[in-house]
Amino acid sequence: MIHMKNLFKSIPVDLPEELFETLVETENIHIERIVSKGHTSPKEGWYDQERNEFVLVLKGAARLEFEDGRVVSMAVGDYLEIPAHVKHKVAWTDPNEETVWLAVHHP
Amino acid sequence: MIHMKNLFKSIPVDLPEELFETLVETENIHIERIVSKGHTSPKEGWYDQERNEFVLVLKGAARLEFEDGRVVSMAVGDYLEIPAHVKHKVAWTDPNEETVWLAVHHP
Repeated sequence: MIHMKNLFKSIPVDLPEELFETLVETENIHIERIVSKGHTSPKEGWYDQERNEFVLVLKGAARLEFEDGRVVSMAVGDYLEIPAHVKHKVAWTDPNEETVWLAVHHP
Repeated sequence: MIHMKNLFKSIPVDLPEELFETLVETENIHIERIVSKGHTSPKEGWYDQERNEFVLVLKGAARLEFEDGRVVSMAVGDYLEIPAHVKHKVAWTDPNEETVWLAVHHP
């Protein structure tokens, strides 16, 4: 019934694309693991999301950029809450190791 | 507006009690950081929660016990989803270092 998993396991050796994996999905929330390795996203433009997003870096390093020009460098343990419709993008992730994120999307 | 924090910082040197800190609270979800150091909880009986809880160990080690007798040992990166009203307790946490948890309570 209760099944334990580990966020740092089951990561493919090759990551041609960012890896998105749903951990919990209900009508209220969506919890996902994201694994990046040198990826940036979205490829063009900005994320403009219907829901708020709590995002936490668990491994690696990344830079988020916001439409107002702000750039935020994130290291292990760093987290922030991105309100719905605040446009943002992943401007950089470490090309030398996996960056593992936990994201909680919530209305 | 967007304020970054770090889950491994702002931990008091002395932890006479477990430390609970709300990171995000809305009518839909409650995201909190919990820091334990040799603590178990609740002191007596079981947690019997109205909401589902996604729980992740970020540092340290812990053992959860369930009313059906199952015991789950959790290390860094381990996560599980505890459905509402599944009675459980924290039976053990590492007495030698802080155990840092992320918990997401959701209906």
